[in-house]
Amino acid sequence: MTNKFRSWIYSLSFIGLIAGGVVAASGTATEGGHGASIALTFLWIAVILIAAKFGGLVEKLGQPAVLGELVIGVILGNLALVGLHTFEPILEDGIIKFLAELGVVILLFQIGLESNIKQMREVGLSAFLVAVVGVVLPFVLGTYVVGPWIMPGLDPNAYLFLGAALTATSVGITARVFKDLGKLHIPEAQIVLGAAVIDDVLGLVILAVVSAIVTVGAVSLGMIGWILAKAILFLVGSIVIGQLLAPWLGRMFAKIQTGIGMKFTLAIIVCLLFAYLAQMIGLAAIVGAFAAGLILDPVHFRYFKDAKIVHDVKQALKDADASNEAIKQVNHAIEEHSHRHIEDLIEPLAFFLVPIFFVLTGMEVKLDSLFDGRVLLVALAITLVAIVGKILAGAAAGKVNKLLVGCGMIPRGEVGLIFASIGKGLGVINDELFSVIVIMVILTTLLTPPILSVMLKKYKE
Amino acid sequence: MTNKFRSWIYSLSFIGLIAGGVVAASGTATEGGHGASIALTFLWIAVILIAAKFGGLVEKLGQPAVLGELVIGVILGNLALVGLHTFEPILEDGIIKFLAELGVVILLFQIGLESNIKQMREVGLSAFLVAVVGVVLPFVLGTYVVGPWIMPGLDPNAYLFLGAALTATSVGITARVFKDLGKLHIPEAQIVLGAAVIDDVLGLVILAVVSAIVTVGAVSLGMIGWILAKAILFLVGSIVIGQLLAPWLGRMFAKIQTGIGMKFTLAIIVCLLFAYLAQMIGLAAIVGAFAAGLILDPVHFRYFKDAKIVHDVKQALKDADASNEAIKQVNHAIEEHSHRHIEDLIEPLAFFLVPIFFVLTGMEVKLDSLFDGRVLLVALAITLVAIVGKILAGAAAGKVNKLLVGCGMIPRGEVGLIFASIGKGLGVINDELFSVIVIMVILTTLLTPPILSVMLKKYKE
Repeated sequence: MTNKFRSWIYSLSFIGLIAGGVVAASGTATEGGHGASIALTFLWIAVILIAAKFGGLVEKLGQPAVLGELVIGVILGNLALVGLHTFEPILEDGIIKFLAELGVVILLFQIGLESNIKQMREVGLSAFLVAVVGVVLPFVLGTYVVGPWIMPGLDPNAYLFLGAALTATSVGITARVFKDLGKLHIPEAQIVLGAAVIDDVLGLVILAVVSAIVTVGAVSLGMIGWILAKAILFLVGSIVIGQLLAPWLGRMFAKIQTGIGMKFTLAIIVCLLFAYLAQMIGLAAIVGAFAAGLILDPVHFRYFKDAKIVHDVKQALKDADASNEAIKQVNHAIEEHSHRHIEDLIEPLAFFLVPIFFVLTGMEVKLDSLFDGRVLLVALAITLVAIVGKILAGAAAGKVNKLLVGCGMIPRGEVGLIFASIGKGLGVINDELFSVIVIMVILTTLLTPPILSVMLKKYKE
Repeated sequence: MTNKFRSWIYSLSFIGLIAGGVVAASGTATEGGHGASIALTFLWIAVILIAAKFGGLVEKLGQPAVLGELVIGVILGNLALVGLHTFEPILEDGIIKFLAELGVVILLFQIGLESNIKQMREVGLSAFLVAVVGVVLPFVLGTYVVGPWIMPGLDPNAYLFLGAALTATSVGITARVFKDLGKLHIPEAQIVLGAAVIDDVLGLVILAVVSAIVTVGAVSLGMIGWILAKAILFLVGSIVIGQLLAPWLGRMFAKIQTGIGMKFTLAIIVCLLFAYLAQMIGLAAIVGAFAAGLILDPVHFRYFKDAKIVHDVKQALKDADASNEAIKQVNHAIEEHSHRHIEDLIEPLAFFLVPIFFVLTGMEVKLDSLFDGRVLLVALAITLVAIVGKILAGAAAGKVNKLLVGCGMIPRGEVGLIFASIGKGLGVINDELFSVIVIMVILTTLLTPPILSVMLKKYKE
C-alpha cells in the first residue's frame, strides 16, 4: 500500500466518521434520551472547531484567521440556500450561543490582560475624541441627512433608531485582527480599544434616550445623568477598587491554596464577575471583561509561585551569592514568569471558545437578505454612512495613523442589532429597515478584517 | 491605617461585591432583557468556582480537593433547608449542567492522556475480572438476597431494577482522588479505570435486558449480542482505528496551521467526537473521552513544533555537532516537550470545568431524603451491599492491593440514578425505593474520597 493511497483511505474514513456522526445526529436528535442533547452539542462544537481550523487556511494568504472563521461561518450558516439543512440546529442551540458569548468575553479579557492602564491613560484623550465624533457623526448623518433622504416618508422615530444603530463599534472583530497580526500594542490599537469602551457607554445613553423619546415622548436629564453616572462609576470604580483589591485578593487566595490552578481560577472569577456586573448596569459584558483584564496586572499575581519558579529562584540566588543584584534579578525572574504564566493559562480557553464566537457570528449572516435589489442598494448607502462616519472620527485621533484608527472603528455588531430589534419591537422599524441595518452590520463586519490587514501590513512602527 | 484593618475593609468590600451581585441576581433574573440570563450564568459559574476554591481548604487537612468540592456543593445545594433559596437557580441552569458534563468529559480525557494503552493491556485481565465480579455480585445480592429480605412484598421487577442500579461504578470520583493525590500511574488505579470502562459496557447490556424483561417480558439473545457487539466494536475499533488515524490526522492538520493552538484544538475535537459517538451507541460520554485520551499518544503530536521547541532543537544540534547521538537527543527533546505540552494545554480547561461538575454533583445531593428514619435504615443496608459487593470484586484483582481496587470501585453515580429513573418511569420503582437508591448513590459518592485518601497515604509503591 503506497503512502498516498493510505492517506486517501484515511481521509475518506475520517470524513466518513464525521459525516456519519452528523447524519446520525440528524436522525437521533429527538430520541436517545439521557444526555443525547448534551452529546449532540459536543458534536456541534467539534464541527465548529473543525470548520474554524479550515477557515484558518486564509492565514496562508496572509489574512487574519478571524476572516477565515467568519467566512466559513457564513458558508455553514447558508448551506440551507442549496438545500442542506444539516447545520441549522447549531443556531438554535442555546449552549453554543452561551459558549460563543463566553468566548468573546474571554477574548476581551485576554486583550485587557495584554493592555495596561498606563498605556490606556496615555491615549485617553484621543480615544475620547474618536468615540464622541464616531458616535455623533453617524447618528446625525443617519437620523437627519441620509436616512430621510434615501428612505423618505418613514416615521421620524425610525430615522432616530437608524441613527442610533449606526453609532456603536463592535470591538471584537478589530481586536481580533490586531491580535492575529501581533499589533495589539501599537497606539492605534489602544485608541480603538479605549474608544470602543467609551462608545459602549455613549451607546447606553443613546439607547435610553431614544427609547424614552419613542415610548414616553420625552427624556429627563436626570435619567440620562443617572445612566451616565452608573456607567462611569462602574468603569472608574472597578479600575480604582480593583487595583486596591487585587493584591489583597491574591494574598488571601494564596492562603487557601497556591499554584497555577488557583491563579487561573482567580483570574476567571474576576473576569466573570466583572462581565456580569457590566451587563447588570446595562453595559456590554465584554466591557466588564476588558476592565477585569486591565486590573489583573501581572504584578498582583506574584504570590502564586509554582515549583518551577521557586526552583529557578533558588538557583539564581545560589549562582549570584545572594547579592543585592541577585535579589533584583530574582524579583525580575518571578515577575517575568508570572506574567507569561497567566496569559498562557487563559490561552487554551481562548483557543477553545473564541472561534465558536466568530464562526457563529458568520453563521448568523443571512445571505438571502442580500437578494432584494432595492433593499441592498439602500443598505449599501447606509453602510457607506457607517464607514465614512467612523473614518472621519479617526481624524480626531491626534498624531497617529488616523485612517487606521478610523477603519478599526468600522465594525458594527450586537449593539446595532439590539437597536434594530428594540425598534422593531416598538413598531418603529419595519422589516425593510431592519434588513438594511442587518446588511450594514454584515458588511462592516466582513469588510473590516481584509481592510485592516492590508493597512497593518504597510504599517511602520 | 494598619494592614490588618485594611485587610478587613477589603474582605468586607469583596464579600459585599459578591453578595450585591447575588442579591441583584435574585431581583433581576427575569427582567434585564438581552444577555441578562447569559450574564447570570457568568455569576453562577463565578460563585461555583469560588465555592470550589473554599472547598479546596480540605487539602490543608490532607484530603483530596474533590472531597471539599463535593461537601461545599452539598452545603450550597441544601441552604434551602435553612430558608436560603439564593442558589437554587443554579440547579435549573441548563448551561451549568452542560459545563459540568463537559467538565467530567475533560477530566476523563485528561486521565486517558495520562494513561497509556500498553499499561491498560497489562492490567486488562485483572480489570475484566474485577468488572465482572463487581457487576454480578451486587446484582445478585440486590435482586435475590438483600432486596427481597429487607423490603419484602414488592414487585419482583423492582428488585431487578435495584440490583441493576447497584452494578455500575461511576469512575469520575475515584479517578479524581487518584489524580489529586498523584497516584494515577499505580496498577490499582489502572485496574479501576479499566474495570470502570468494562463496567459501563456491562451496565449497558443489563439496562437493555432489565428494560426488556419489564416491558416485553422476555429478552432475545440477538438483542444482547447486538448491544455487546456495538459497544465492543466502538471501544476496540476506536482504539485500533484511532492509532492508525492519529499520525495521519496530525500531519494533515499540521499542513493547515502549526502551533499549539492547532494541537490543542485537534485534541479537543477528537475528545468531543469520541464522547459524542460513545453516547450515540449508548455508552457514557466519559468512556468515549477516556478512549480518545488513550489514543492521543503524545508521539502523534510530534508534528506540532512551536517556536520554543524549534529553538531548543537548533541549540541541541549546535551543541552536539549533529552526530547521531545528537539527533537521538533532539527527537527525545521534541517528544518530551510535546508530551508535556498537550497535557499543559488541557489543564486550564480542566481547572475551569472540572470543579463545576463536582460542586454540582454535591448540590444535587438532597439532604432531606435522609430525614425519613425507616428509608434511611433500608438505604444504609443497601449501601452496605453496594460497598461489600465491590470490595469482594477487588479480590479478583490479582497481585495488587485488592482492598484499594475494591474501594476504588465503590462510587455509584449517574448510571445508578438512570436505572432508578427508568424504573420509576416504568412504574416498577416506588418513591421509597427511589429514595433508597438516591441515598446509596450519595453515600458511596461521599464516603469514597476519605476512604481512598487514607489508604493511598499508607500506600507503598
